[in-house]
Amino acid sequence: MQTLLDELRHIVGNAHVFTDGDLTAWEQDWRKRSHGKALAVVRPACTEEVARVVKTCADYVSANPASGVSIVPQGGNTSLAVGSTPDESGRQIVLSLQRMNTVRGLDADNLTMTVEAGCILQNLQERAEEANLLFPLSLAAEGTCTIGGNLGTNAGGTQVVRYGNTRDLCLGLEVVTAQGEVWHGLSGLRKDNTGYDLRDLFIGSEGTLGIITAATLKLYPLPAARLTAWAAVPSLEAAVTLLGLAHRHLGAGLTGFEAMGQFALSLVAKHFAQLRVPLHLDAPFCVLLENSDQESELHAHTQFEHLLETALDQGCVTDAVVSETLAQAKQLWHVRESIPLAQALEGLNIKHDISVPVSSIPDFVRATDALLQQALPGVRLVNFGHLGDGNLHYNVQAPEGADAADFLRDHEARVNTLVFDSVQAFGGSISAEHGVGSLKVDHLAHYKSPVALGLMRAIKRALDPRNLMNPGRVVRV
Amino acid sequence: MQTLLDELRHIVGNAHVFTDGDLTAWEQDWRKRSHGKALAVVRPACTEEVARVVKTCADYVSANPASGVSIVPQGGNTSLAVGSTPDESGRQIVLSLQRMNTVRGLDADNLTMTVEAGCILQNLQERAEEANLLFPLSLAAEGTCTIGGNLGTNAGGTQVVRYGNTRDLCLGLEVVTAQGEVWHGLSGLRKDNTGYDLRDLFIGSEGTLGIITAATLKLYPLPAARLTAWAAVPSLEAAVTLLGLAHRHLGAGLTGFEAMGQFALSLVAKHFAQLRVPLHLDAPFCVLLENSDQESELHAHTQFEHLLETALDQGCVTDAVVSETLAQAKQLWHVRESIPLAQALEGLNIKHDISVPVSSIPDFVRATDALLQQALPGVRLVNFGHLGDGNLHYNVQAPEGADAADFLRDHEARVNTLVFDSVQAFGGSISAEHGVGSLKVDHLAHYKSPVALGLMRAIKRALDPRNLMNPGRVVRV
Repeated sequence: MQTLLDELRHIVGNAHVFTDGDLTAWEQDWRKRSHGKALAVVRPACTEEVARVVKTCADYVSANPASGVSIVPQGGNTSLAVGSTPDESGRQIVLSLQRMNTVRGLDADNLTMTVEAGCILQNLQERAEEANLLFPLSLAAEGTCTIGGNLGTNAGGTQVVRYGNTRDLCLGLEVVTAQGEVWHGLSGLRKDNTGYDLRDLFIGSEGTLGIITAATLKLYPLPAARLTAWAAVPSLEAAVTLLGLAHRHLGAGLTGFEAMGQFALSLVAKHFAQLRVPLHLDAPFCVLLENSDQESELHAHTQFEHLLETALDQGCVTDAVVSETLAQAKQLWHVRESIPLAQALEGLNIKHDISVPVSSIPDFVRATDALLQQALPGVRLVNFGHLGDGNLHYNVQAPEGADAADFLRDHEARVNTLVFDSVQAFGGSISAEHGVGSLKVDHLAHYKSPVALGLMRAIKRALDPRNLMNPGRVVRV
Repeated sequence: MQTLLDELRHIVGNAHVFTDGDLTAWEQDWRKRSHGKALAVVRPACTEEVARVVKTCADYVSANPASGVSIVPQGGNTSLAVGSTPDESGRQIVLSLQRMNTVRGLDADNLTMTVEAGCILQNLQERAEEANLLFPLSLAAEGTCTIGGNLGTNAGGTQVVRYGNTRDLCLGLEVVTAQGEVWHGLSGLRKDNTGYDLRDLFIGSEGTLGIITAATLKLYPLPAARLTAWAAVPSLEAAVTLLGLAHRHLGAGLTGFEAMGQFALSLVAKHFAQLRVPLHLDAPFCVLLENSDQESELHAHTQFEHLLETALDQGCVTDAVVSETLAQAKQLWHVRESIPLAQALEGLNIKHDISVPVSSIPDFVRATDALLQQALPGVRLVNFGHLGDGNLHYNVQAPEGADAADFLRDHEARVNTLVFDSVQAFGGSISAEHGVGSLKVDHLAHYKSPVALGLMRAIKRALDPRNLMNPGRVVRV
């Protein structure tokens, strides 16, 4: 293996192959649930170096099939599904894209931007805004995560109701294949029907089929105004009715629709006393709505007022506020975004990232809440998420006073089974926006249809016959 | 082979296996350029029958590898790329989805509709509209083409600038694999990151990897108003500037942006004297814009007026009209849609369905026009298309007075090479929205990167090892 490391050093330079010292930043996952040991952290500077690294590893594995060497691509290492850290074997090479962080170009007339995989998401949002354009992908880790990871996991976030997932924001890719070849698939084309959709196959494949090194992304005109509203709703049924009204009244102006359960908001009020949490005391759920308007702030305001008056009249909203200033809007979003932190301060919990059809949300939550209460009386549900997309972070917290660590140890498997079985019964997904990684690879083997798993394995074997790329993630072969 | 036919008759019933009589409707392509001979036309009634037909054929081919038997899936048989008709061998089974035309369900709260592959597109538009919703896919063949074919070819059309291609309108699929298994991937989920994107792999694969039998489609709120405008522009650069202005002013309201060259419009005026073609006499290009407004007709009108005033001020529009009535709007669209017919009446011509980045359209057209004039002096360009998507139907007509059939025979290959080389030089696609079929399979082998072709072949071999499904289309193995 020394030979392999020497070759890698030759390709990327001594300074960019790490084997000693504290490699925690690359070896430990974001939620600190997994601590691996890398053979090396390799940080190529350009696509050609990535290709040479992969080719070198592929050749090494061909010559030494028992070596167990493989490659784990890594961006900002913010995976919530343990998808980007090495295992404990000491045989995996972490291939970090962090140094590839150039915006290669922005084409305003074509509404596109071509960027390297290691660009941090927030930097891309800012780069677009400098050109008076919008790159709409937005999620909690945006200050750290990279676009390569967003693409590899098809990340979701808070504006999916209007702009779709990362997949929907990408027109073309540059990819290093598992053989170390470069597929030059960057494209500013909105229509291209020349063969199989390789782009979408690599997007969401979590580095198991190849390494995304660059992408051409869609941009949008920057809205003239963005307003935020906060509405108390009497039930999840009412929230779904409100969503329908919002689609009708705001059309594509509806860029955010987040629901938050009373208990989730009470945790924010408890642990962040300085934050004002509006309207939650008398409502089982609150909804945060965002309206992005191409015309003016006045127009956005008028539209929100019409919508909320209609909703109040129909009884699907009991009370509502509309942000009057940017600061107020930010504060409302801040409350929403503080839920995961407040929940962590309350103690360890069992997280889920599930989706069901929007129309099934009320029944799903009612049924699953009841099953959980029956199985584990007193259990508390921290239920919030992107209702506009049917995506809930349906998290389970220990009963009041119970030891959270004990609860997690004793009940995590059972809670997962109960929630995932319920998700399946409602035609849902056990991983809506976070991906599979190592965390859910065995769950997937259980819940995904055998036909789909068979197709996935056939594709994996065809494109990565050496099982070199992020093995054990997504699907085992 | 008689055994095989008997088995197929047993599965779908005698009445639904055609081997005799006039089978032109299934054996001849839409543009009547290809006339094949089928072993049989088989018309299953349901997914299970499709699966049994495929399984039976797969078993037959395994037992008789030299038989040359294969399957050509067919919907409305409106392919413009010769993708859905049998070859001349008499060994191909046309598997028609026409009998599978049920709308399985419409979920208004979830904004989805689940439909079988054989549903005619226009019927789906109407079904959505009955529920006060919009299914936005719209294209010339909508009265005949089926959604299965739209998905198989990832069809484009006139509203892509807002709603995307067919791919973007689909959430889930039911597919019969090349082994005759059923992948139950119907889904009303807007977020589902559980493994490889099988959905988008089958979409656009033109029946070469399996057969789409049903799909869950996205719906949108029906706009409150749709207005159409017609603008004369002094150049294609001005058209691109107008597009940018339209994006800014109308946002997601911009649902159509079609450009039409002066010669294309003059053919409409010549061959359809009863149609009034506005503003084309003094402008090299005209643009048709559609504004779909969630609010009201008045609001749509005001927005169009602001946009066109700004455009007139900036000089990127020289004159414009906005439709005052639905009849006027329909008439404007009718002019646009009459171009292909007018062109056909003028004589045979060489059609292209190309795309380049929107920002490159002016340079591409200038450069390619010049190359064509140099190679074939007097040649006439019927240039029109979906400028909002960078997609032009850049068609080449014989010089005035020349014999069109002779021109086609003598110059088609040369014109294609010249146009495709130019498309490639501008980073474009030789098939923007029509697909590959048989017509462009050899062009693709030339213009697509070897790495991409290698990936496509590996996928084809992995999912259809017998080469049973629509062989010779998209990619040869």
